[in-house]
Amino acid sequence: MTPEDRIKDMGLVLPPPAAAVANYVPWAVTGNLVMTSGNLPWRDGKLAYVGKIGKDLTGEDGYLSCQLSCLNAIAQLRDALGSLTKVKRIIRLEGTMGVDESFKDHPKCLNGASDLINTVFGERGRHTRMIYTNPVMPLDCTSLVVLYAEAET
Amino acid sequence: MTPEDRIKDMGLVLPPPAAAVANYVPWAVTGNLVMTSGNLPWRDGKLAYVGKIGKDLTGEDGYLSCQLSCLNAIAQLRDALGSLTKVKRIIRLEGTMGVDESFKDHPKCLNGASDLINTVFGERGRHTRMIYTNPVMPLDCTSLVVLYAEAET
Amino acid sequence: MTPEDRIKDMGLVLPPPAAAVANYVPWAVTGNLVMTSGNLPWRDGKLAYVGKIGKDLTGEDGYLSCQLSCLNAIAQLRDALGSLTKVKRIIRLEGTMGVDESFKDHPKCLNGASDLINTVFGERGRHTRMIYTNPVMPLDCTSLVVLYAEAET
Repeated sequence: MTPEDRIKDMGLVLPPPAAAVANYVPWAVTGNLVMTSGNLPWRDGKLAYVGKIGKDLTGEDGYLSCQLSCLNAIAQLRDALGSLTKVKRIIRLEGTMGVDESFKDHPKCLNGASDLINTVFGERGRHTRMIYTNPVMPLDCTSLVVLYAEAET
Repeated sequence: MTPEDRIKDMGLVLPPPAAAVANYVPWAVTGNLVMTSGNLPWRDGKLAYVGKIGKDLTGEDGYLSCQLSCLNAIAQLRDALGSLTKVKRIIRLEGTMGVDESFKDHPKCLNGASDLINTVFGERGRHTRMIYTNPVMPLDCTSLVVLYAEAET
Repeated sequence: MTPEDRIKDMGLVLPPPAAAVANYVPWAVTGNLVMTSGNLPWRDGKLAYVGKIGKDLTGEDGYLSCQLSCLNAIAQLRDALGSLTKVKRIIRLEGTMGVDESFKDHPKCLNGASDLINTVFGERGRHTRMIYTNPVMPLDCTSLVVLYAEAET
């Protein structure tokens, strides 16, 4: 099974690569490393998750928002490399979330991204991770995901 | 026109590379990649922008603060490489801002950095971008900019 | 003296590499670069520093929390490379802290990490640095430290 097959197998659809929301690019390659910009939870051209986890949204929503942001990040990797079979390794996952100060389970929400990566890429998905919370998010989105991936040479 | 010429053409002045504000260094090189530390909006040895956008400062101030932090980051790239003509590609722009919770246009403020990069480096300035907001900023500065650049070999 | 010797000389103990707190890995290597995940201030399997600097903890606690998070990050570098003598250069230190809005000295707290790196690695420890504050931290920990290190080939 290819990574693309595993995405379908999860009942998910790899979206078309979203354009950047301002005058930058969604991905860049340096050496064997692909780096993405921050990916919002886009679905069919609209933000599927807006607002803060623990206030406007539940933890389960937060999980799905991180999953969707990550799916958009994976779409950028495919755009950069032509095929996800060219991903040798997911090196870094960076997840930034808008959460209410009372909400403490945001690491479980970011598991929405980690679980997706692990399922889709298997051994090649063994990634490092850094988690951030920010008081104000672009377009009030719930999550931003950045991926660094090593490409097959 | 060189990147240095384009900076002058914008009516801007590339500042001398600022010293780090603590016991770290302003840039490091690994392989072909130059990474900078977080750059504050220094002008003539003073912070030109202090406080939060949307409370102490307008969005236009925020734009100029990000532009100035980025100009300081570009000064570090020149210090690292000797000349900005050695920049093969700006890979990543990281912008962190102090904003009031009511202010939602911080992505437009970070365009102050993106517009500068695009104008100065043209095709070589096509960068990825990640945006953060932080509740407390070092020295209460308005913006911090990090650049990753690929150097000509 | 080796980096390991210098750690002992400071009266510190390099902890065993902590497991990731979710389904990701503590470090990854791409090319000559080792990148760690975010490191919490673990000591003997417990978080030694919890809560916000300037509210629940003093600035001195914050310094020690960053030092301990960094010590845990260094333990990951040793796990990745087998020995700290294989560290050619510390490239990037990323420090993220939970601080009260009234507390402004968090850069001094992050010196706990920078001082440790400089002492342990000497000239090879000359690192870039980026500092973040986040409203909500994983497990309410006081500090998270990420290191990027270039390995000897």
